[in-house]
Amino acid sequence: MKNLLVILLLCASSYVLAQSADEQQIKKIYDASLTEGKGYDWLNYLSNQIGGRLSGSVQAQQAVEYTKRQLDSLGLDRVWLQPVMVPKWVRGVPEFAYIETRPGLTTNVPICALGGSVATPDGGLKANVIEVQSFEELEALGTDRVRGKIVFYNRPMDPTLISTFEAYGGCVNQRYSGAEQAAKYGAAGVIVRSMNLRLDDYPHTGSMNYGDTPVTQRIPAAAISTNGAELLSTTLKLNPNIQFYFNQNCKQLPDVESYNVIGEITGSEYPNEVMIVGGHLDSWDLGDGSHDDGAGCVQSMDVLHLLKKTGYQPKRTLRVVLFMNEENGLRGGNKYAEVAKKKSENHIFALESDAGGFTPRGFSFDCSDENFKKIETWKTLFEPYLIHMFVRGGSGADVGPLKNENIVLSGLRPDSQRYFDHHHAENDTFEHVNKRELQLGAATMTSLIYLVDKYGFTQPIKVKG
Amino acid sequence: MKNLLVILLLCASSYVLAQSADEQQIKKIYDASLTEGKGYDWLNYLSNQIGGRLSGSVQAQQAVEYTKRQLDSLGLDRVWLQPVMVPKWVRGVPEFAYIETRPGLTTNVPICALGGSVATPDGGLKANVIEVQSFEELEALGTDRVRGKIVFYNRPMDPTLISTFEAYGGCVNQRYSGAEQAAKYGAAGVIVRSMNLRLDDYPHTGSMNYGDTPVTQRIPAAAISTNGAELLSTTLKLNPNIQFYFNQNCKQLPDVESYNVIGEITGSEYPNEVMIVGGHLDSWDLGDGSHDDGAGCVQSMDVLHLLKKTGYQPKRTLRVVLFMNEENGLRGGNKYAEVAKKKSENHIFALESDAGGFTPRGFSFDCSDENFKKIETWKTLFEPYLIHMFVRGGSGADVGPLKNENIVLSGLRPDSQRYFDHHHAENDTFEHVNKRELQLGAATMTSLIYLVDKYGFTQPIKVKG
Repeated sequence: MKNLLVILLLCASSYVLAQSADEQQIKKIYDASLTEGKGYDWLNYLSNQIGGRLSGSVQAQQAVEYTKRQLDSLGLDRVWLQPVMVPKWVRGVPEFAYIETRPGLTTNVPICALGGSVATPDGGLKANVIEVQSFEELEALGTDRVRGKIVFYNRPMDPTLISTFEAYGGCVNQRYSGAEQAAKYGAAGVIVRSMNLRLDDYPHTGSMNYGDTPVTQRIPAAAISTNGAELLSTTLKLNPNIQFYFNQNCKQLPDVESYNVIGEITGSEYPNEVMIVGGHLDSWDLGDGSHDDGAGCVQSMDVLHLLKKTGYQPKRTLRVVLFMNEENGLRGGNKYAEVAKKKSENHIFALESDAGGFTPRGFSFDCSDENFKKIETWKTLFEPYLIHMFVRGGSGADVGPLKNENIVLSGLRPDSQRYFDHHHAENDTFEHVNKRELQLGAATMTSLIYLVDKYGFTQPIKVKG
Repeated sequence: MKNLLVILLLCASSYVLAQSADEQQIKKIYDASLTEGKGYDWLNYLSNQIGGRLSGSVQAQQAVEYTKRQLDSLGLDRVWLQPVMVPKWVRGVPEFAYIETRPGLTTNVPICALGGSVATPDGGLKANVIEVQSFEELEALGTDRVRGKIVFYNRPMDPTLISTFEAYGGCVNQRYSGAEQAAKYGAAGVIVRSMNLRLDDYPHTGSMNYGDTPVTQRIPAAAISTNGAELLSTTLKLNPNIQFYFNQNCKQLPDVESYNVIGEITGSEYPNEVMIVGGHLDSWDLGDGSHDDGAGCVQSMDVLHLLKKTGYQPKRTLRVVLFMNEENGLRGGNKYAEVAKKKSENHIFALESDAGGFTPRGFSFDCSDENFKKIETWKTLFEPYLIHMFVRGGSGADVGPLKNENIVLSGLRPDSQRYFDHHHAENDTFEHVNKRELQLGAATMTSLIYLVDKYGFTQPIKVKG
């Protein structure tokens, strides 16, 4: 009993010392990020000198070259490009749409083609509209009521959910599978309410998929702004026989070669244990992709920069991975995991930032109970920086393909309230990213990487003075 | 022992029931705020139809009348105006300033007079500049080096502090007392770096005070934008003999009558226990005062509206108080406390929202240990809404004069990262307030008021099913 007490006291005192060293290192990281972080300047270049970076575009290639050059300048141990074939979908000339209440009486509404959609027929598509809130409602209407019409999916995001990502999750099937479902009943086209909690005039694009629909039966799909959706819905209530016209010229071209951009600091003690931190370098084409996901890319790059700035040499191998093609294919995420598997690399941790450059609130973790318990012991280290959320849950799309029993997957969780005001829309632009919020996110990620590197995941916490 | 166990079990089970009732009520409050909150529309009117509401201005009077009308429409038990004499300071024609590197070679820089400052002499003031970071540095320079010059206070906000209010606290003496201090050494005028963490072109005004400086010795004081401050500092390093010119025509007029706007729901069981919730209705004149403090006003008004919407009748008396003249006099806050004291009203709780309409993170409390312990038991009720900070500390300027041994003072603590980008500047405008962030703040305040009303502060928590 007495011996146990002595051991406990010893543990407790080394714990205090260890805590204090961790507190100091984390303070150094936050200070460095808030005063010498490079992320905001990198983002300025990506957003304002390059712009939207749709997979397969010239801008995506420019982003690959720019970020590689920047990683080269950081003095890492290795920087390389990992080739990956990506889909190339192009929007073509700007879309155009109107509501026609009677012949010749039209009101223009803002729309944009969904990513992956086919074009409308030459000259556009004009048809009656049937509004639904769900696939069940569509099914109940059946072919007789749907054939030849434009199906208008108008289920809004639930404003009472505190996490706007949850509200998004409750709606996005309309965008992703709406055309596939409507085509089954002979619809001529699909218009989807933008995934946006705010009422405004921006249509929000995003990926969609035709599933098994034969090529000849694929119908064009577009998003309409939330104000446009409200107008269309109100108009339909007054007169169900109105017509809707839209014209879009998007198309799918053959796949092209692109790259994941990777930089590495090789671990000094356990080089075969690999930690990665990343975001996706591609974006949609309407805005400049500042929040989605320029922010996550530059924060991830800053993690390596900030560790160097604070004089910390990782014991484990740390890689930043800027994934290509998260938005419409996930080819980069899949390729990275495929190569890692082929090389039998042991990835112990993957952290993704793909939820905007807003004030960080915490992390989500997809891992074993045991590892989550270990992670939770670090929570108090983050409280001085107002990081309170350590929750179980999904991490991020790009690191998903690495999932196995041993790896810990994690996602940065920034404040989500403003995210869907900008997501996939023309107003996802640089001026909507606050420098300090971005920097705090980078520091929070760097601090977690530091702790994972120091304590690892396979054995109990090693206490060091 | 057995009896104690039974009592404990009974307590525990009623606690669970009570928690569950509280959880339900709080969920109703958040739902109502996110779907039926009126604050955003009220703020739209205050900001876009009325605008900046400097004490004594026509706009301040319009705001008094508008908010009284809105409170009248809520079906409260009483709505009234509380007269208070306020200072009337006017800016006059727009200020103008330049750096003159040699005769005729000038660069304009953005400045604005500090609130309460005197004008420059007719035709403006041109003088050499001496840059300092602190009053100590000024004192060390002494009269010989300072006389006849413009003192340029250029100590920046500390970017490494996570709370930007703390960074503000570390700088604001330059603005508030800079002129008083510089006048002691014979300075001709004062230019102060704007209290802004960001580098931009907006000068930020704010209150200043001459202390005991005789009227004839008062010198003009203005804020310069952070970019302007950087330019001036760099120019001075190249050539300490440059001149700075500024012209401002502000003046102090006689006090005028204005009002605190007050609305009340009289308590059904303890009408003599008064809880108040408020913000300040006046603002600076450069922007439209959306964050400072239109947001706090409309959130406070919404507290009463949301309790009504959710069918909750307070047991204690609840007042919303929209204070006049927080910015340059605190006359409204002082008047409210003075009248309360005269009437021997028993104020048990005062909650202020005056830190911007950003995502709420928690509250600060100025109260006894015993009451803080009670408050901490409510913390878990807020966690589903990502409210994590329950800290001791300052509450708000307007409720400060109510302080005594019994009252609990509290301040809403929103995320502070963006606050000083807008504070007291031309860009404190409506479009920088996010509707959901504002609504979440109102719901968070309403939930706290609900708990205070239900459980009170003078006796142990009453458990009700």
